[in-house]
Order: sequence, then C-alpha cells, then structure tokens
Amino acid sequence: MAKEIPSRSEDYSLWYNELVKKADLAEHSDVRGCMVIKPYGYSIWEKMQQALDAMFKETGHVNAYFPLFVPKSFLAREADHVEGFAKECAIVTHYRLKTSEDGKGVVVDPEAKLEEELIVRPTSETIIWNSYKKWIQSYRDLPILINQWANIVRWEMRTRLFLRTAEFLWQEGHTAHATAKEAVDETLQMLNVYAEFAEKFMALPVIKGKKSEGEKFPGAVDTYCIEAMMQDGKALQAGTSHFLGQNFAKAFDVQFASKEGKLEYVWGTSWGVSTRLMGALIMAHSDDDGLVLPPKLAPIHVVIVPIFRTETELAAIREKANLVIQDLRKHGVTVKFDDRDTQKPGFKFAEWELKGVPVRLALGPRDLENGTVEVARRDTKEKQVMPIDQVAVNVVLLLEEIQKNMYKRAADFRQRMTTPVNSFDEFKKVINDKGGFVSAHWDGTKETEAAIKEQTKATIRCIPLDVPDEAGTCVFSGKPSARRVLFAQAY
Amino acid sequence: MAKEIPSRSEDYSLWYNELVKKADLAEHSDVRGCMVIKPYGYSIWEKMQQALDAMFKETGHVNAYFPLFVPKSFLAREADHVEGFAKECAIVTHYRLKTSEDGKGVVVDPEAKLEEELIVRPTSETIIWNSYKKWIQSYRDLPILINQWANIVRWEMRTRLFLRTAEFLWQEGHTAHATAKEAVDETLQMLNVYAEFAEKFMALPVIKGKKSEGEKFPGAVDTYCIEAMMQDGKALQAGTSHFLGQNFAKAFDVQFASKEGKLEYVWGTSWGVSTRLMGALIMAHSDDDGLVLPPKLAPIHVVIVPIFRTETELAAIREKANLVIQDLRKHGVTVKFDDRDTQKPGFKFAEWELKGVPVRLALGPRDLENGTVEVARRDTKEKQVMPIDQVAVNVVLLLEEIQKNMYKRAADFRQRMTTPVNSFDEFKKVINDKGGFVSAHWDGTKETEAAIKEQTKATIRCIPLDVPDEAGTCVFSGKPSARRVLFAQAY
Repeated sequence: MAKEIPSRSEDYSLWYNELVKKADLAEHSDVRGCMVIKPYGYSIWEKMQQALDAMFKETGHVNAYFPLFVPKSFLAREADHVEGFAKECAIVTHYRLKTSEDGKGVVVDPEAKLEEELIVRPTSETIIWNSYKKWIQSYRDLPILINQWANIVRWEMRTRLFLRTAEFLWQEGHTAHATAKEAVDETLQMLNVYAEFAEKFMALPVIKGKKSEGEKFPGAVDTYCIEAMMQDGKALQAGTSHFLGQNFAKAFDVQFASKEGKLEYVWGTSWGVSTRLMGALIMAHSDDDGLVLPPKLAPIHVVIVPIFRTETELAAIREKANLVIQDLRKHGVTVKFDDRDTQKPGFKFAEWELKGVPVRLALGPRDLENGTVEVARRDTKEKQVMPIDQVAVNVVLLLEEIQKNMYKRAADFRQRMTTPVNSFDEFKKVINDKGGFVSAHWDGTKETEAAIKEQTKATIRCIPLDVPDEAGTCVFSGKPSARRVLFAQAY
Repeated sequence: MAKEIPSRSEDYSLWYNELVKKADLAEHSDVRGCMVIKPYGYSIWEKMQQALDAMFKETGHVNAYFPLFVPKSFLAREADHVEGFAKECAIVTHYRLKTSEDGKGVVVDPEAKLEEELIVRPTSETIIWNSYKKWIQSYRDLPILINQWANIVRWEMRTRLFLRTAEFLWQEGHTAHATAKEAVDETLQMLNVYAEFAEKFMALPVIKGKKSEGEKFPGAVDTYCIEAMMQDGKALQAGTSHFLGQNFAKAFDVQFASKEGKLEYVWGTSWGVSTRLMGALIMAHSDDDGLVLPPKLAPIHVVIVPIFRTETELAAIREKANLVIQDLRKHGVTVKFDDRDTQKPGFKFAEWELKGVPVRLALGPRDLENGTVEVARRDTKEKQVMPIDQVAVNVVLLLEEIQKNMYKRAADFRQRMTTPVNSFDEFKKVINDKGGFVSAHWDGTKETEAAIKEQTKATIRCIPLDVPDEAGTCVFSGKPSARRVLFAQAY
C-alpha cells in the first residue's frame, strides 16, 4: 500500500478523514474550521461545477456576482432568516491595522471601526433582494433567473472536511417571479436538476422530498431537498431548493406593476449545492483501498502503469502506450502514463487505487510480445487481459459500464437500507441496529418530530415526493397520518 | 438611442461610469466600495476566465482553494507585506450576533470575540506559504504550480467600478521552486501568458516591463507588469507577476532537502489579474455609442434585428433567419434573434450598439425579396448589404477582421500616445497637454521618481523589457541614465 487508511468497518469516521487527506483531496488549514481544497480535490469540484453550470444555463439561468459582505441590518430584515444565521457568522468590525505600541506587531486600529458591522455572507438572499429592489419595477423585468458561484462562511463549531466547514464553496440560485406558480415550478425544476446531476454524474441515487417545518431554510415557505444514503447508513442532504414565497420581497419591499397595472410583491426562490457534494461522493462509493470515482467526475479516467526493469523495456512500452493514449484521447478519455522510476508497480497500483482512477492498464514486456494488456477496473477490482489493439474502444465501453455499475450498486444499497416500520419499537431497533432510512408514519407535529429526535437522533430527512398517500397512524403518538415520511440519522 | 451616455470628450470619467451602468455590466452595491457584477458583465468575465484558465493549465498549473481568512499574525510575518496591506483590510473580530437588549434588532455578541483577529484576504501569499510549509520537504515536492480563482478585499477609500473596488474577483498563481532561475523563468512565463491573453483575446496591446522599487509588490524582490494605454491617455496596469525570491519561504520557514541533501529555502512567485481587466477592456475600445467588444470575449457575437410591421412579415423573416442562425452556430458563433415587438428597430440598434455586439444583421421584407441582408460592424460602424446565402461564412471572416482591427486601432493609438522626451519641460508639456506614455531617461533613484510624481502626477509605469540600453541623462536630475523608462498618469 502507498498510504494506509483504516477500514470502514474499523472506524468509518476515521476512514473518511484519512481518505480525504491521503488521497490529496483536502486538509484542515490553520484557520479554525477552514479547509484547503488541494489540487486533486479541486479538480473533481471543477468537474462538478462545469456539469452543473451547463445545466443551469440550459434551464435559462445566467451567472452574476454580489458582494461578500452583508450589512448587519440587511440580515435582520427577515425575522426567521436572522434567527437562523445570527449565531454562526463572521463579523467584520474594523477596516485597518496599525503598528502596535511596542512596535513589534500589528493591532486593530480602534479608530477604524465601521459604523455598521458587515457579516461575511452565510447565504445571499438579503444582499441580492436588496439589488432586485432596484432592478424590478414591472412584470416586464421578470423573471430574473440568476446564479452565483461563491464562497460562504458559517461559523460551525464542529467541522469536518467537505461536510461541515466554516468556509465552503457553493452555488446559490436566486430567482424572482411574477406568480407563486412560476416560483414553485422553478423550485421544483431546480430540485430535478440537482437530482439529475447527482444520479447522472455522481452515480448517486437521491430521494426528492420536502422538509418538515422544523428542518426548512430560515426564511423559506417550503424547502425541498435531495437526500442520499451513505455506506454507514447515515443520510446526507445533498442539495436544497427553497420556495421563498414573498418573504424576501416583503422584507426588501420589492414590488412590481403587474400586466393589469396592480402593484404586487415579487415571488422568490433560492437553491444551492456546495462542496459538501464532495463528501457525499466520497462516502457513497469509496472502499477500504481508497476513493472510487465515477468516470464522469474523475480527473483522470485511465492510468497506464508500465512494468519494466530496463530503460529499453520502458522505451518499447512507451511507444506502444502512446498509440493507446492517442486513441483514448480521441474518445475524450483522460490518460496518465505513470513512468516514474522512483516507485515500483505495486506502489503505483495502490496509489492510483487510493486516488480512485476508474481504469488501470498494466503493460509489460510479455504483453508487448503477446499483443495484450491487463485492464483493471477500480469499482469491482476485476482484472482481464485483452488484445491491445482493441483496448481503446473497450475502455470507453468499460467507463460507461463503471458509471452505471456504481449507480446500481448505490441504488441497491439504498434499497436494502430503507426499512418501513410500523411501531416505535421497530423504529428504534432499525435505527440502532441497521441504520439507513426508516419509512414511518408521523402525525405531522413538531413535538413528535422533536421527541423522536431526542430518543433516536433520527430526524425527518424529507416527506418524499412521488410517493402515494397512505393512511396510517403515527409510530410515536398513534395519531392519524396521511403518508409515510423518511427518518434517518444524518450528516 | 436606447439609453443616453455622455461623450468621451465631454467627460471621460462620467462616460465610463455611465457606460458600465447602462450597458448592464456592473453597479455599486449598498455595501461601501463593493460592486454587483451584473449578468452581462459577468458573462464577459467568464469568457476571460475560461481563456486564462486554459492558458494556465497548458503551462502546467493546477487550481486549488485556500481559506478566505488570514490570521493577523500570518500577515505580520513578512515586514514589507504587512506594511503594504495593513492600512486597507477588512478585519473579522467576532463570530456571533445576539438579540439586542431592546429586542428590536441584533448586535455583535461581545462574548463571541475571536482570540486572534482574522483578515479577509487582501492577497494569499501568507496563508498559502503556511500550507506550502507542510507540503514541501524535498526537491521531489517541487515545483508546486498552483492557481486560485478567488475574491479579494482591499479597503479602498476611493472606488470605481471594476478599476478599484473594495472587493474584487481575481486569480492568483502561487508557485514554489528549487532554484532562483526556475522561479524567475516562471515569473516571466506568466508575464508572457498575460501579455498574450491581453493581445489575443482583449485586442489590447501591452508593454511588458519591470516595476521600479517604489512601485513593486510588498514582499516581492521584483515585480513585472503589463501596462496598457486607455483612450484618455492614462495608463492602466493590467496584470502583475512577482518574483518573490525566498522572502515568503523565510517568513514561513519553508525549506527543502536538495538533491545534494542540503536544506535550502524555497524560491517563490505569485501573479494575478483581476476584474480590473474589465475596466481596461471597456476603456481601451468603447466609443460614445457604447461598448465595443472584441469578438473573442463578446457573450453575443451577432444580433439579428428583424424589420417588420406584421406578424406575417415577422414569420417569413424568422424562417430565413433561422437558417442563418443554424449556419452561424455550426461555426461556433453566438447569435441573438431580437424579435421583441415592444421596441422599434432603431431602439434595438442603439441598444445592441450600447452592449457592444460585434456584428448586427438587419433583415426586412425587401431583403427577403432580394435575397440580401444588411451587415453592420460595431467597431467601424460600416454597413454593407450582402447576399444572404453567403452571410454566415462572411460573418465568420468579419469577426476575425474585427478582432484584428480592434487590436490594430489600439496599437496605433498607443503608438501615437508614446512620446520620447529629453527635458523636464518637454516632459511636463507632454503629460499636461497630450498625455499618454512619456519615454524618458531617469537616474534610477526613489527621490527623482517621487519628485516627478509630485510635480506631474505621472509615475514610472515600467522599465520596459526588450528595449535596448541607451545612455542618456535623467530629465529631472541630469544624472546619468542607462535606459529610458515609461512614465504616465495612471488608473
């Protein structure tokens, strides 16, 4: 092994942390709660960004950029919103340093105090709706369909690489509409975009649903989400899409003249996914040997490891490999030829497994004689020897097969990890012994939700869409329930 | 005219501000010094980013992401560096708000004071070299060739959209090398990348040079820059590339074991361009009717304006236009068909001129009869009627021609606006009456540089590279000088 990581069964949490660090994805910085996203990790995030950005543009959105700072009074305009974010925000109070009196360092200059403190954006609804007020007068100015790629700060006390950090990267869509229906349609459209992205690119099946009142975004009327299942049986919220009603329009007095000439408040949505998706990607697919990346997000699709003892052997292998590389690149496949002479093949195999490269080719002198090559896939670790003149086209097919297989494996796992229960005893037993999603009747009250959380640490992940109504009784209170909802312990 | 802007000769500064706002590029936000980059402006910035990012990757660089916050003590480690940035930085001192005593708002919670203040990054050398310390042990870990796309905050007191704002967007490259030579080569390589980008994509000729001691980056050994000439005769620094020597390696104790097993300090570079390039692009090319965009950075290459009175006419025009659009798109040309029935053609013409779309096609019923189309180019405002079945291929050629013509026009202008002078009287006269670059002998001292600035507001823009040495005497002091340097008043 290149770099040892603990196994998942040994210590899932430590496995994740070590994997993130040893696969060179990210590390903690010396700034409390902030991470450094290393080049290999960032290149996966770039692939996610490209795919999402294209999907946003196909659905009519444009990008823009709004200020990093939110004046304190803006945040305070929407009551639920400020309540939700006040306890975890970075606050800029001064704008100048000066030399300290002993001349040995710098101190904050007390004379450079801001009249009004600025909050480093924990999300941008308020600063953006303050602009929308200037942009919107008439129904002709609507809809506004804007997305922003940005960094965000929420002062989290317990942080975890990618999953929960004080600063993270994300995109946030903020749209404005003339009617409630249009805004609801937009909210659901973007939920579907997220689900499609997760399934097609991340090979990650997700459940689309609505959040309970207790779990919704501060300032939203309704929050929709996609929820994914991790290998340790915990759920992970992978993206949210909010119907904001007229809440922010009212807070910032954004009205428009309708076709009929009436002044009305604008309807809004917001929706976002973040570098948290990196955590979901890692935890859904990876194994005890390291990362397993879906080909559509892998920075390197294929690594070729030459097996050689002499320079002459390497030269002959390189010549043959170059033909394969040319062929693969024609098909849009990214290839790395690992000809380092400082490491042995076994070390390289382990290193590229750790980094999750979907396909590995090994090519030695005997292969050259036989016209063959060894092809290993990362997801199942199966190997086969095939004629080298067919390898390019076979690898292209294999990459598609790996993408599909990873999705199927995750979907099968989630299927096994979703358990309908009909009593609270059963509920507790499943949550404690098996984990995963528990599908149960709930009476719809905050009190029951809170009591269940208190006793089991499980929260309502969502009220799934596309699930038929089914009359029943709440597993906790015995009161009537119109449908099952999904509970789980979650990241 | 769609929206009036003042002429350049009337008030150049106001022309710029109004153009930026009326062409929907950017506007001031309600946060002091911070701008909102609107979708049309941001789409130009995205095109710049894409081109630059590809050039960085071609030269072996990878992207990563480092924290937004720099602990105060990090900034203070390099003496010149902290001196350069201490007076203009946003400082985070607290991490929580609480409800105010009167219950009517939120206030900073005094109990949530940070032990050490955090500076919102004004540049990232310190936070990045603090990471490099962990990443670099041996010569095998070098070079590190990393770039970051990020937002930056410098608390500017007098701000101007794109040119000087408290928050701006940029990229910053930070590289680490085993030898001084490698680092100097990298510094110059990236200077050349910037110059090539400015010339090929922005159609903006630039002068590559070295900054004087007084103008170099705080913490650098040498600062190289590209300087461009704006239409009002002022210079604009469009990008900088710094040779950092071992300054940051020493400040953060970053040493490596060389091949010979000796511990040595690492050599560094950093280089950046920002949304300031947007200002350069606008001020170099635009005219009294609005933006003039080089085709390589124009979000829309071609706008088609139908000339119609009835729905039937519009339908016939649309049918014909769709064929042209299909053809153009095959060639990678972005086309907008402006079929709004709320505005007249004259209004649309003016609006698309304001927005700088390089080519406009006008298509009316008579054109359909004659098989023709009117083609107008934005740069020269020339119009011609041509057969519609040849229009696509001609437009592709025309876009190339416009790109070249814009470069040539800017290069000719700069040529006219560069004046060699041999006395200080001549120097002052040129700076006051004509503006532009003044090429003059300088004795190389800070004192002379400061005195000239004091008397003329002109600074040394750079000591141009690729200019032969020429013995002479300083225009100010009469002392000997080995070469001419470029002076100008500057943004």
